[in-house]
Amino acid sequence: MGTSWYSLVSKDLKTVEDVVANVIRSENPELTEICSYVLGSGGKRVRPAMCLLVFRACGGIDAERAFDVGAALEIIHNATLVHDDINDEGDLRRGAKAAYKRYSIGKSIVAGDYMFALGFKLVGSASHEIVGYLVEASAAMGAGEFNQKDYEHDARVTEAHYMKIIEGKTARLIECAAKSGAFLAGADSDVIEATGEFAYNTGIAFQIVDDALDVAGDEASTGKNIGNDIMEGKPTLPIIYALQDSLRGKRIREIFEAPVLEWSDVREAIALIKETDAISRCLDKAKGIIKDSIRLLDVLGDSEYKRALVDLAEYIADRDR
Amino acid sequence: MGTSWYSLVSKDLKTVEDVVANVIRSENPELTEICSYVLGSGGKRVRPAMCLLVFRACGGIDAERAFDVGAALEIIHNATLVHDDINDEGDLRRGAKAAYKRYSIGKSIVAGDYMFALGFKLVGSASHEIVGYLVEASAAMGAGEFNQKDYEHDARVTEAHYMKIIEGKTARLIECAAKSGAFLAGADSDVIEATGEFAYNTGIAFQIVDDALDVAGDEASTGKNIGNDIMEGKPTLPIIYALQDSLRGKRIREIFEAPVLEWSDVREAIALIKETDAISRCLDKAKGIIKDSIRLLDVLGDSEYKRALVDLAEYIADRDR
Repeated sequence: MGTSWYSLVSKDLKTVEDVVANVIRSENPELTEICSYVLGSGGKRVRPAMCLLVFRACGGIDAERAFDVGAALEIIHNATLVHDDINDEGDLRRGAKAAYKRYSIGKSIVAGDYMFALGFKLVGSASHEIVGYLVEASAAMGAGEFNQKDYEHDARVTEAHYMKIIEGKTARLIECAAKSGAFLAGADSDVIEATGEFAYNTGIAFQIVDDALDVAGDEASTGKNIGNDIMEGKPTLPIIYALQDSLRGKRIREIFEAPVLEWSDVREAIALIKETDAISRCLDKAKGIIKDSIRLLDVLGDSEYKRALVDLAEYIADRDR
Repeated sequence: MGTSWYSLVSKDLKTVEDVVANVIRSENPELTEICSYVLGSGGKRVRPAMCLLVFRACGGIDAERAFDVGAALEIIHNATLVHDDINDEGDLRRGAKAAYKRYSIGKSIVAGDYMFALGFKLVGSASHEIVGYLVEASAAMGAGEFNQKDYEHDARVTEAHYMKIIEGKTARLIECAAKSGAFLAGADSDVIEATGEFAYNTGIAFQIVDDALDVAGDEASTGKNIGNDIMEGKPTLPIIYALQDSLRGKRIREIFEAPVLEWSDVREAIALIKETDAISRCLDKAKGIIKDSIRLLDVLGDSEYKRALVDLAEYIADRDR
């Protein structure tokens, strides 16, 4: 991540890491260990970066509460990953064993709950208002997971259903990050809304690229097994687009609708999807969303932080991990 | 629950139910359904009752925020039950199918997370200070679950280990209920601490009785399978006491330490434990704790609410469900 958005926010992100490391220490050593394992295993820190960059771009100066909120967002995001991996039976996360594989399902459910509590603690001590944003995002995350499960292995899923799913799954927490940063900088409500909408769209594009990488990515750089979404019958945009292919759609549908798959089926589906225009349509879609949403930043005066937000958005649409 | 503590708080508890019913409505119908299923299936509402009775006993008048906090405590308590049932593979909860058995593990994990978020939302809008109490309780709940897992099927568990486990599992959230009620009534810090300690002890006694009922209770009145704790190798006080029996301890230990059990083993263990003095020691212990902790209420002036708190504590130590 040698991009300019990162260099500008890297010092702030180090402070966020310190807050995280400090707050996850508990009186039970194994609980602390699981939290450290999950939060120490990397990740792009997109949510705290969004929070801090928007805070700075809105002219915020004393960032102490923004550090707390950034840490909270990262902790809560990781809590959802711990629980999602249990739901999805995902083996790998960021190139390492998923927490539940290493520490048992029971301990991982509890550790995730504990991380939620820590996240709300940090936000609660920073701002009342932001607890409200966070709860809205958390509720949307729950609804998103439900919508996703409703369309597993179901070829009737449309692009509109997919957008609703990833709104909850990804976009709303990133939106919360931006709105929190703007709010803490004392921005007007129209700026809070506009930066929130920018971040929301960035989150949508982020998830589209993530889903494209599950088909066309490289295991070494993503740190995840490729084809996991197909294995689990998850309704993702590359599949939705590939189902529309006149030649290959029928076989892709058979694989997508099969309740149980072999990895040979998954490999076949990946090869077929790659033969269609699905991946390039996904990446074009993500780039288009980013391009349109950058205009929402017109509410902000020019600054290196505003330019970094543009960089961050463009990085998200054009990454390989 | 025709006891006097209940009649005095029943109107307040109805308002708490209204807050709960209102807040769990989400845009996803199935998510709302799961929350209603879990929260509508009864339960003793001990936490909101404790919050409201302490609030009234401390002279609190406008109870609006106490209703919100009471609702939050009940929602968070139920969120932990949904997750615990997954961990413990419990089939029945309050006489009905456990949520994960009815709706899948994945949906139940998500619904539990959503309920945590709602709980923090309600508390966050009521009071900053109480978010702090709640986070401490949530962290202790996590640690308690970890301590419990550490001593599953392990006959080295002592009464002191057990006390530490149930502190997190039960006592800290009930303590939080009382402290929140006192705080919202504007009580002094010594009153907040004393009512909190009273409630903490009440919670300890509550869990001891609960664990005795798992051995000596009646399935029809408890709404749970008897012997579940033994089946899962949970370190509970009746087992700790029964292990000390010179005649039957050896066989009870064999059963407790076996990693996998048949229900015939569980029935044998129940019969053996009932032959020891373990159940009566547990119930005496719970009564002794309640008797001692009632003195902590001396900080409160006399009122029908104070007397109701005494009733509530005595009910907890002397119940059959």
